[in-house]
Amino acid sequence: MTFSCDKNLILEAVNNVIRTVPAKASLPVLEGLLAEVEEDGSLRLVGSDTEMSIETRIDVQADSAFKFVVPARTFCDMLMKMESGEILFALDDKKVLQLTGGVVNYKLPTMDPALYPTVPVVEKSKSIRLKKNLLHSMLRQTLFSVALKDSRPALKGALFEVGSDKLTVATSDTFRLSLRTEEYESRGGEYSFIVPGKTLSELIKIMKNDEDDITVGLASTHAVFEFEQTKITTRLLSGEFIKYESMIPKSYKTTAVVKAEDMKKSIERASVLVSDKVKSPVRLSIEFDTIIISYRTPDGMSLTDEIKAQIEGDKFEIGFNDRYILDAMNGCDSEKVELKLNSPVSPMCVTPHGSDKLLYLISPMRLRND
Amino acid sequence: MTFSCDKNLILEAVNNVIRTVPAKASLPVLEGLLAEVEEDGSLRLVGSDTEMSIETRIDVQADSAFKFVVPARTFCDMLMKMESGEILFALDDKKVLQLTGGVVNYKLPTMDPALYPTVPVVEKSKSIRLKKNLLHSMLRQTLFSVALKDSRPALKGALFEVGSDKLTVATSDTFRLSLRTEEYESRGGEYSFIVPGKTLSELIKIMKNDEDDITVGLASTHAVFEFEQTKITTRLLSGEFIKYESMIPKSYKTTAVVKAEDMKKSIERASVLVSDKVKSPVRLSIEFDTIIISYRTPDGMSLTDEIKAQIEGDKFEIGFNDRYILDAMNGCDSEKVELKLNSPVSPMCVTPHGSDKLLYLISPMRLRND
Repeated sequence: MTFSCDKNLILEAVNNVIRTVPAKASLPVLEGLLAEVEEDGSLRLVGSDTEMSIETRIDVQADSAFKFVVPARTFCDMLMKMESGEILFALDDKKVLQLTGGVVNYKLPTMDPALYPTVPVVEKSKSIRLKKNLLHSMLRQTLFSVALKDSRPALKGALFEVGSDKLTVATSDTFRLSLRTEEYESRGGEYSFIVPGKTLSELIKIMKNDEDDITVGLASTHAVFEFEQTKITTRLLSGEFIKYESMIPKSYKTTAVVKAEDMKKSIERASVLVSDKVKSPVRLSIEFDTIIISYRTPDGMSLTDEIKAQIEGDKFEIGFNDRYILDAMNGCDSEKVELKLNSPVSPMCVTPHGSDKLLYLISPMRLRND
Repeated sequence: MTFSCDKNLILEAVNNVIRTVPAKASLPVLEGLLAEVEEDGSLRLVGSDTEMSIETRIDVQADSAFKFVVPARTFCDMLMKMESGEILFALDDKKVLQLTGGVVNYKLPTMDPALYPTVPVVEKSKSIRLKKNLLHSMLRQTLFSVALKDSRPALKGALFEVGSDKLTVATSDTFRLSLRTEEYESRGGEYSFIVPGKTLSELIKIMKNDEDDITVGLASTHAVFEFEQTKITTRLLSGEFIKYESMIPKSYKTTAVVKAEDMKKSIERASVLVSDKVKSPVRLSIEFDTIIISYRTPDGMSLTDEIKAQIEGDKFEIGFNDRYILDAMNGCDSEKVELKLNSPVSPMCVTPHGSDKLLYLISPMRLRND
């Protein structure tokens, strides 16, 4: 039972599927990769954890159909250290895999593929298709506000809402909301689903940021992301996402247009004083044509900085978690951003200046007067 | 009490002296940097731990002489986040330091400089002077075999031996010896001293690898490394270094010349199978015109590889710690290296082919026959 293929081809495939394989698992087989050489001469590689699995296919020269499970990291390390060029893989009677390239020979005992968890077969009822770079940007602009720990499991993922003419991705850790919409013509009616944040984080690492298509197939409990030779199967999150529409104010009393880079640098200046222990808010003082950014620690360190702004409406002071403003500035991808506010105790809306495709809503933190 | 200077100038100086400041210390002042503005308009910055101190000077515009201690990391972070250009530093009556650059203003409470440990004044009795890039290479080729934990404190440093016509740097963790010599005309007779490995590791990070001079001044308990505006004061290690000369065999029964890169790649292939738990030796089988490199784990994984070699003398098998061979290959800086051996239970000598300035001696590990 042998197959052969180019080293770099299989190494790239292994590097993709290995992402989801846990470094430490309760059973050795769960730290493994499933390799399945098929009749048609293709090699299917699968890596998985309890939540998702990644599989990819490459063309190989094979003498028969067979399968095995190898320890993922050791297999990857071995491939990495071999010379470029053709590698011959041979599985012997004792279920030991030999990797041979030139004078280099590795032996690696394999595990029983029957013990490997089965990848759920997803009977797609609906599917959406879009360009990879579009999905990439939608996720990059929203994934940072997925809840990490939360009593509501639905917030640990991103809500995909397919409307009749638009696609929306929403995330919220309850302190902030990220909302990204794009025109999209649905052929399957209106529906929504929630994909675990972890799956999507892996997806944007594996998926090339190019103009080729990606398909998202949907069943009741699972979704499948398919592009080129790769397939990512994930369970969906159940439960209800927050009703975010009612949270977004209909009007604002104050708007300020600032350069995103100015705001980012200024908040970063405050961030160096923020310690994990004492999380006090960064203070924004909205003045006539500037915003004063200030921060003060209990032990007497402080920052004062100011940035230029075009301001209309009420002037007041408001406090925020520094990290949330930085994430919004990084997400906006635009030279100027618009800050819209109502009062020191109402959330601030951040949008790229002149765009209605992206919206961040950030809850304020109470300022102490000192 | 104020001074001003260019941001990048002071930031570079701070980045150098901060290296030795511990991130966590028993007293806050020990996590600080001492800043001393002197009458002549120079700023002396000092960072230190129990073993060594680093000080450097930059030119500033000052209105008076004064000194203070600032929390090292916060001070560095603040500087890093300020805009390039002139920064004004002002120490007020409450001993709070204000950093002002453009509209940015930081306040940082300082600590009492009287609490800062004094840097020992070293009365130099002898000194050596050499080019920085020469010292850099001598240290890079030997420092890796400084003992980390050892009953003999003297092995936690590098032995500098000043002879009448040569300078030698030696390190040994008892399992291996690294020995680097260079022609050197001593004006102070013959003597030796042992510098802590940690000091030297910091030194090669701070010291530019160029042709300018560095001076090493010596007193009975301390040494001072001086170059440009920087001065590193370190305590010396007492105790006796090993008598390494008697360890080096006078003759060898087998010599093999190999390409360093070939050996390195081959050992790295074995290294991916070496776990911290089971440290078994890499096997080198010296044959007619090749060396077979092999490795086997208790759970059945293995590597076999071979490299071309020009071999003279006895043929046999010998085992080594993979890391020690890799360090020697990296240290040799030459295309070909010479391996000289006597038997499976005697140390191997590794030298760059055709050079007598560098020598590594590596103890073998016992091979199990299976």
